[in-house]
Amino acid sequence: MNLPPIGITFGDPAGIGPEIVARAVADPRVRTACQPVVCGDRAVFAAAARQLGLTERIAALGEVTFVDSGVIGEGELPVPGEVSALGGRAAYVALQNCTELALAGRVRAMATAPISKEALQAAGVPFIGHTEILAELTGSADPLTLFVVRDLRVFFLSRHVSLRAACELVTKENLAGFTRRAYRELARLLGDPAPKVAIAGLNPHCGENGLFGDEELTAIAPAVRELQAEGLAVFGPYPADSIFYRALQGEFAAVISLYHDQGHIATKMVDFERTISLTLGLPFVRTSVDHGTAFDIAGKGIASPVSMIEAILTAAKFA
Amino acid sequence: MNLPPIGITFGDPAGIGPEIVARAVADPRVRTACQPVVCGDRAVFAAAARQLGLTERIAALGEVTFVDSGVIGEGELPVPGEVSALGGRAAYVALQNCTELALAGRVRAMATAPISKEALQAAGVPFIGHTEILAELTGSADPLTLFVVRDLRVFFLSRHVSLRAACELVTKENLAGFTRRAYRELARLLGDPAPKVAIAGLNPHCGENGLFGDEELTAIAPAVRELQAEGLAVFGPYPADSIFYRALQGEFAAVISLYHDQGHIATKMVDFERTISLTLGLPFVRTSVDHGTAFDIAGKGIASPVSMIEAILTAAKFA
Repeated sequence: MNLPPIGITFGDPAGIGPEIVARAVADPRVRTACQPVVCGDRAVFAAAARQLGLTERIAALGEVTFVDSGVIGEGELPVPGEVSALGGRAAYVALQNCTELALAGRVRAMATAPISKEALQAAGVPFIGHTEILAELTGSADPLTLFVVRDLRVFFLSRHVSLRAACELVTKENLAGFTRRAYRELARLLGDPAPKVAIAGLNPHCGENGLFGDEELTAIAPAVRELQAEGLAVFGPYPADSIFYRALQGEFAAVISLYHDQGHIATKMVDFERTISLTLGLPFVRTSVDHGTAFDIAGKGIASPVSMIEAILTAAKFA
Repeated sequence: MNLPPIGITFGDPAGIGPEIVARAVADPRVRTACQPVVCGDRAVFAAAARQLGLTERIAALGEVTFVDSGVIGEGELPVPGEVSALGGRAAYVALQNCTELALAGRVRAMATAPISKEALQAAGVPFIGHTEILAELTGSADPLTLFVVRDLRVFFLSRHVSLRAACELVTKENLAGFTRRAYRELARLLGDPAPKVAIAGLNPHCGENGLFGDEELTAIAPAVRELQAEGLAVFGPYPADSIFYRALQGEFAAVISLYHDQGHIATKMVDFERTISLTLGLPFVRTSVDHGTAFDIAGKGIASPVSMIEAILTAAKFA
């Protein structure tokens, strides 16, 4: 067997990351899809596996390569749910190590469990999240988020801005530029030079020819024409309440969502736990669960590993 | 057996309405849930049933009450897919008849197949759709649309306005007033005096405390506090990309969607064909398919009756 090595970080050691990663590497589907390379503190991971009674099962499924961060020792195990500088430092070092492996080609893709903004701050790490850290570590200008659930793939023209600001960002130039980048990354990801991409409308029923809202006429349709003239298989605008369904049925390789919730609602209603975030525009594919550290339930052994498993399987699929 | 009589109109006779209603009354689930009272032109319905080879099957399932409009005679059968004044007139008269039956208590609820705006115009009927006609015929001030799919129920603060205009409509007064009405109608529909209702946020992550967008702080939360002070079980705002999922799991009886696509995307991604529209605020419950006349495939016998069946079953459920 020649399974792709996939780097896995368990994120903040006081969150649910160690548990869900332990459960994931104890899952036969994960072990038949990839060779896990877990980056983090061995003492933390071993404790999680032990607590869940999974130590032997993980070993029975074959060797798990472990890259020990050396930040947290046996006697320094973090208190579940507690933000700490040590935890922030441990999460950051694991991510650095995993990125080095990926850049060196020793893992083929990376799946990450959640980190804590507060813990990173406490550790003096000057970044607010994974994407920013990975962009910096790899010298990537502007990574691109792709949501994936089953056969539905969604890009976001904007994300963490107000809905009013998102409306302002729907201009021909902005949309054409963004779609060009997304198209290029998607073609590379899928190994398909001409994927079919749909652009969602902004207004209900695409504004019914300007009756309620005209961005479809003034910005979206002109952007689509420009991209088509360049030879890209880009279509739209399509009513937002049907295009995600059509793409899920396989009609399009991806949809450009015009604002955060448009695409988030669509993907999460298909399968809440199996909606995975991919970061494109890095030298390697990175997947991520779409939930947080869940400090409130950390260490209780009740966190669901479904998203983490899906993130690893998706990383392996696109590796 | 004492099944509730449900009025069923097949809408524009040149659309897919006659076919999907014929298929629906030939469906055993429909016949065990209600006693169908079909309103329309008998000649049109009989032709559709004959073409689909369903005449005997429908009869074998028991009597279907038929209220003949008397607009279209045997020799005047409409050409499938063609807009006509006769078709518009026929659709309107059927709706009038069905409304009279409902007001007289002879049907307990109404399920409607699609009508054509253009055909109504050609017939000189001065309304643009079902809701406006029903409001006028029943003297109802301002009917309310509720989308239903499985256990997810969604009201819409606004519908056919631009997304920018929808943002403007998110004010404390507007939201409180609308939610009060929706709450009352929902309580009546469910026969539950205190249903739990959630209000979705407008901005991604509900704006993260004003970081991107402040309607959650300035309008939505104050409206929720006001409604709670009145004793209503209204909660929120909740991030729009998780609240519909939570309601689908049964945590809330309904969600107030702040704009058209927010709730439309959510319901249609759960089950595209089984998303049913209910009109509340009339003297009776009316359900409707969420698709149009589909003139392009009318008369070909290929239209799916799934939505129509679901609309009838939903009408029977809430009758």
